[in-house]
Formats: sequence, structure tokens, C-alpha cells
Amino acid sequence: MQINTDAKQGAAKIMQQADQLGTFSAMENGLLRAYLTPEHKAAHQQIDQWMQLANLETWEDSVGNQWGRKVAKNPTMPTLLIGSHSDTVANAGKYDGNLGVLLAIEAMLQLSDVELPFHVDIVAFADEEGTRFNTTLIGSSAVAGGFQEEWLAVTDSDGISMAQAMTHFGLDPALAGKDQRLADDILSYLEVHIEQGPVLEDLDLPVGVVTGIAGAKRYQFKLKGMAGHAGTVPSNLRRDAMCGTAEMVSAIEQFAIDNEIVATVGRCDVFPAAVNVIAGEVHFTIDIRSQCQSTLERCCETLLQMLSDIATKRQLTLTHEKLYQAEAVLCDDDLQKKWGEVVEQHTQKPPRFLSSGAGHDAMVMTNITDIGMLFVRCEKGISHNPREQVIESDVAVALNCLVDMIKKLTD
Amino acid sequence: MQINTDAKQGAAKIMQQADQLGTFSAMENGLLRAYLTPEHKAAHQQIDQWMQLANLETWEDSVGNQWGRKVAKNPTMPTLLIGSHSDTVANAGKYDGNLGVLLAIEAMLQLSDVELPFHVDIVAFADEEGTRFNTTLIGSSAVAGGFQEEWLAVTDSDGISMAQAMTHFGLDPALAGKDQRLADDILSYLEVHIEQGPVLEDLDLPVGVVTGIAGAKRYQFKLKGMAGHAGTVPSNLRRDAMCGTAEMVSAIEQFAIDNEIVATVGRCDVFPAAVNVIAGEVHFTIDIRSQCQSTLERCCETLLQMLSDIATKRQLTLTHEKLYQAEAVLCDDDLQKKWGEVVEQHTQKPPRFLSSGAGHDAMVMTNITDIGMLFVRCEKGISHNPREQVIESDVAVALNCLVDMIKKLTD
Repeated sequence: MQINTDAKQGAAKIMQQADQLGTFSAMENGLLRAYLTPEHKAAHQQIDQWMQLANLETWEDSVGNQWGRKVAKNPTMPTLLIGSHSDTVANAGKYDGNLGVLLAIEAMLQLSDVELPFHVDIVAFADEEGTRFNTTLIGSSAVAGGFQEEWLAVTDSDGISMAQAMTHFGLDPALAGKDQRLADDILSYLEVHIEQGPVLEDLDLPVGVVTGIAGAKRYQFKLKGMAGHAGTVPSNLRRDAMCGTAEMVSAIEQFAIDNEIVATVGRCDVFPAAVNVIAGEVHFTIDIRSQCQSTLERCCETLLQMLSDIATKRQLTLTHEKLYQAEAVLCDDDLQKKWGEVVEQHTQKPPRFLSSGAGHDAMVMTNITDIGMLFVRCEKGISHNPREQVIESDVAVALNCLVDMIKKLTD
Repeated sequence: MQINTDAKQGAAKIMQQADQLGTFSAMENGLLRAYLTPEHKAAHQQIDQWMQLANLETWEDSVGNQWGRKVAKNPTMPTLLIGSHSDTVANAGKYDGNLGVLLAIEAMLQLSDVELPFHVDIVAFADEEGTRFNTTLIGSSAVAGGFQEEWLAVTDSDGISMAQAMTHFGLDPALAGKDQRLADDILSYLEVHIEQGPVLEDLDLPVGVVTGIAGAKRYQFKLKGMAGHAGTVPSNLRRDAMCGTAEMVSAIEQFAIDNEIVATVGRCDVFPAAVNVIAGEVHFTIDIRSQCQSTLERCCETLLQMLSDIATKRQLTLTHEKLYQAEAVLCDDDLQKKWGEVVEQHTQKPPRFLSSGAGHDAMVMTNITDIGMLFVRCEKGISHNPREQVIESDVAVALNCLVDMIKKLTD
């Protein structure tokens, strides 16, 4: 694997810039940069500067996204969008979102002297995580025409509405989302992001091509049995909700393996929760995801039936409610193929295609254009955590790939 | 099954007396009668009256137990002890403990004209549940010579020490436990108690003979895996502490069935407990009981190894600590045989022998004498709950059995 000097220097610069962005934080000993905060303002001012140094024309849009444009000679040409988000969760890592923004700016700097047959707009989305208003993907939704006027009334934990926060930030809430981009003007949307999972590390690959973003469903289950004295009720007369839950969790685990999906029981609350009382009731959640929407639908149906059968067999009562769902989104085949070619070129290995289990701005951008994503390996798959880490040489590979991907789109 | 008129009337009276005792409560809409409280005082004054009506000589001992004696003609004869406890848990039922006290008094009333070759002492133990001081079995421990002086310093939730509470109650804490009974003077200890389990109801039997009180061990487990994103970590790269716990709980359940013991996972706390995060750590408890102490020891050893093997296989880290243990106690063979005979006589069915999964005063009384216990069916095995219920005709059977058991001991 060969990395050229430009990419090496670019990657080193990006690592420094990520450290620098990490200082724009509302937490004293950690990173927290939420939407429409002074930290958002400061970080975007810094990004604006870097965009200008990369010879881009910069502006802030109606919801506070930061843009930088490389103009094509022919003004009627469509625009290639490249971006990711600049906001973070609480106690975040420095690379989630931000790495994609920095890579895009650096790529444009390296392409300063290259004439492209399309405009390129780099965008730092101001909210993807939903940290402040519990409404995720505000930045990309506004760009893709999905900004909901009712969001303006949503309040943060201090009771400040999004409209008030926009005004305080210097934006006009009446204009929010009005500068949406139109599908006809857009060529494609590219995004580079850390994997947030352990697959690339496990395969010892610096980057991988994203096939799509998994659809997800989340359910809350309530399993009722009968509480009882841990000493006086023999095994054959028990209706133990904890034992029922155990059988269900094991069934879910095996089902996920058999069907090549992921399914997670992340919460499990036992009642009455005493060491010497048989569990009368257990509440647990499932988060289930698949790259294929029809697989997801089929798996959920089968799994609900399986759990219901276990409950019946054990004389337990199972009820559930759906907490959340998001449709699966596919990356464009041609963009995947092109990413694959540049990845193979820069890693000297067959490209690894993998789906994204986490949500991304690209998910929303599919509403107006084709999307293509590249993942960068991150240490142990850890994300949303100060221990989030990337390797500088991987960043160099990603930079090379992105530069060549942009060039490839000129073909 | 035939019930004589005396037993029918006796059972009806006992049901009324149980209702009446249920009114001596610290709770407005429920039953709570804790040690050394005004309710304890009032209930024991009532019991004292009933004992006198049954022609017994009454007194209160050094720790507040209420006694009633039928004196044998020959004062050098040993004493048969019959008793149970009069205190309750919070939001209790009316029969746990109290039924045994009332049955014993009524039995003595019916035996008023019968001359017995031993003294009979009926005792209402003032504390078995440990509701107030978290120290259980105070009443029977004092009688059996096991009162610990350090208990006097233990405080209740209001910061009142047991010594202070004794003084306020009218007892001299310096004398607590000094009037212990001596093994040489005691013939046996009999106790009738509600089953607190569903076995007799399941078999449609009014009473059953207790073989012993199960030994118990309780453990706290901590199972550590690795937290992760519910969408980005594929099944094969997970170290999911919840899935590990599920496999362990199922193994525990099957192991209990295979080994004819009871084992209960009553608590299970998941961390970080988010719907979209793989469980990094789970804490759970096991309560494991067996009538046979060596079986209990062997089962705990095997089970700990099984759980450890599951953890190793899944690359999880399992640690445990013992929270509690109580040795198994056996009922006297000859007393079991005699109970069996009277049970068969009054139910016209072969007697059912069953072990007690819950602890009882009899457990402590084994330190000075042989014990023999009879269980009375209770509805759905529910206990420590206002829904605790017994059937009047079962109480009549139990009364007949107890009267004839006392007579049988004269043989």
C-alpha cells in the first residue's frame, strides 16, 4: 500500500484539525458540541476559515449548516455534494462526522488546480445527532427538503425552543429549510465517515465501501408471569418471567446469527427485583436491523411469532409496542463500484463492501440524490466515546480515495 | 374426609381470631406488626387472653415472646413446645405464623380435660420476620439460647436501638435471652404453618408433613462483556453480557429441574441499559435451595463451574460473591412418621411429605430439640401479601391433626 506525500501531509493536518475542533466543546473534560450553541458557532467559523484556505466560496445556510463551494467553469453544471456533520453527542469522540468534513475540505484543497465538470459543495451539517432537541438529522433534512416546521417549537432541556435558539444564533427561523437543494441540480452525495463498528479492524483494512444504511425497528416487550417465593414454589409450578426472558434472548441471538441480521436486547428490567422472589414481570427491548428492508420486515414478523410461542409454552403473557422504525437505504450501485475501484487502487486489496448499522446524513440525502459512502476503520469500533480513535495512515488512504473518487466522477 | 363438630367450631373460631389479630396493625389499609411495637403489645395481650381461656398459665419472656402452659401432674416431666410467630412483614397476610399460634391454643382448649404425661408450652414468638431490625428469628433464638448481645445495639429505620425499644416496651434488655430453655427439659417442638407455596393446592391436599427446611445460598454475579453500537457490531464480534446472562439463566433453570432443587434469578440489572447499546455488563443474583445440605453444596459447586464455562466460551468475565447462606435442617423422622399417621387418619389419603423452602422458627429450635412441622394449604401459594388465604375446612383438618399428634406423643 503506497501513500503519496500529499496524502501523508493532508492526513497529518486533518488529525491536527480534528484535535482543534475537539476544543470547541461545552464540556470541561470532554467533547460536547450541540446544535445552535456558541461551540457550534465557533467550530463553523473555524471550518469556514479552512474552507476559504481550500479556495472555496463559503456561506451559512438557513439552519446553520456551513458550506464551501468550488465553482465549475460552466455555471449550468450540476453539483456534487460532499459532507458529514460537525455536531457531537455528549462525551463524544473527535472523528464521528467531523472527519468526513475535514477530509472533504482537504480533498478540495488538493484538487484546487484541477478543473472539474461540476460544482462541488462541501457541507458541515450542524445537527445530525439530535443531542440538543432530540430531533436528529436537522441539518441534512433542511438541505433535502425535509425540515418540519413543527420542529421550531421543540424545546431543549432548558425549555428553549429551536426557533428561539435559531434567533439567538443569528438565524431567521421563518426561513429555516427554505433554501433546500433541488434534486435536478445535484449530481450525487458523497460522505466519508468512521465505521463505528469493528468489521474493518477485524479484517485489517483501512477503509471499506458502504452498501447502504440498515433499516431498524425497536420494540418494547412486557412479559408477565407470576411472582413467588424463591424457596417454596417448585420448578414445575413456576411461571418465571426471567426464565422466559432468558429463553427469548437466546432465541433472538440465534435468530440474528441464522438470518445475518443484528438484534440487540439492550434493556432488561425485572420486577419485583428481589433476590428471593421469582420474577413476576420483565420488561425488555429489542433493536433489530438489516440492510435489506424486506429481510427486516420478514425477520420482525418471524421473531415476534417465535417470542409469542415461547410465552405461550411457558404460560406467560407477552405484549409489545413498537418504539421506533427507520427504513433501510441503499447506496448507489455505480458509486459503490467506483468507490471499490479507488479503494482497491489505494489498498492493493479487494475492496470490502459492508453495510452501515448506524444512521448517517446520507440516509436523508437519498431523498434528493444518489449516495455513496466510504467507511474509515476506527479502533475497536468504539464511537460516541472519548476513546474513539482513527489511524493517521488510514486517514491518508481515505483522502487518496476521496480525491480519486471525485476525479472518477468526471469520467 | 370427616371433620368432627369440635374441629369445625374450632376452625371457625380460629378464622375469626386471625381476622381479629389482623387489626393490630401499624398500617392503615394493610397488616404490619413489627417487633416491640404497640401492635405487638396489643396482639400479645389478646393472645394472652385466649391462652387463659384455654386454661393455660401465661407469661411474657425476656424478649417479649408470649407463653401459655398446660402443666402436667408430675412437675419433673419434660415439656412439649408448640408455637409459631405473631409478627408480620409489611403489607402481610393474616395467617403466616399467626395461624400456628391460634391452632396451638385451640388444640389445648380441646385437650383441657385430657391429662398429658408432659407439660405443654404454647409460644407466640415475637419476631421471626425481622421486619423492624433486619435481624430475623429473634424470638426463637432467645428461647433456643442463640440470642446475640450485639443485637441490642442494632437500630431500626428511625435509629432506635433494640435495647431502647425493649425498655420502652417494658422489658429489661440486660435480661434478654437469659431465660433460654434447656435441651434436657424439652420433649420436642411442633409447629403448624401455612405452606407459602403451591404444592398442596396443586395436589388438592389440605395439609402436608414437612420433611425439613431447605438450606439456601445466595450469590451476586457480575458478568462483563463489551458494550457496543447495536447497529454496527456484527453478531460474531459481539461480547454481549445480556446474551451471556440469558444462556446462564436457562442453564440454571434446567439444572434446577435436573437436580430437583430450586434456583431463582430474581434480580438482573443491565448496563448501560440503552435500547441501542449492546449490554457491556449485567449483574444478577441466584437464590438456590435444597432440603439436602450435601446436594446444595454439590449443586452450587457444579453450577458455579457451569456458569464459569459459559463465560469463558463467550469471552466474558464472570465474578461472584456469596450474599447469604443457611444450612438445611431436617425434621425428626419419628415426628414425621407420627404426623403422617394423623394426616392419613384425617384426610383418608396417603400423607404428602414435602420440604419447606422458606425459613421458620423450627429451624432455630433444632438447636435444643427435635422438630416436627405440619403445613396447611394456602391459596395459590401466595404469602407475605394481603391475598394470603386459607380454607376454613383445611384449618379444621390441621386442628384435628394437631390434637391427635399431641395425644400420639403420649404413647
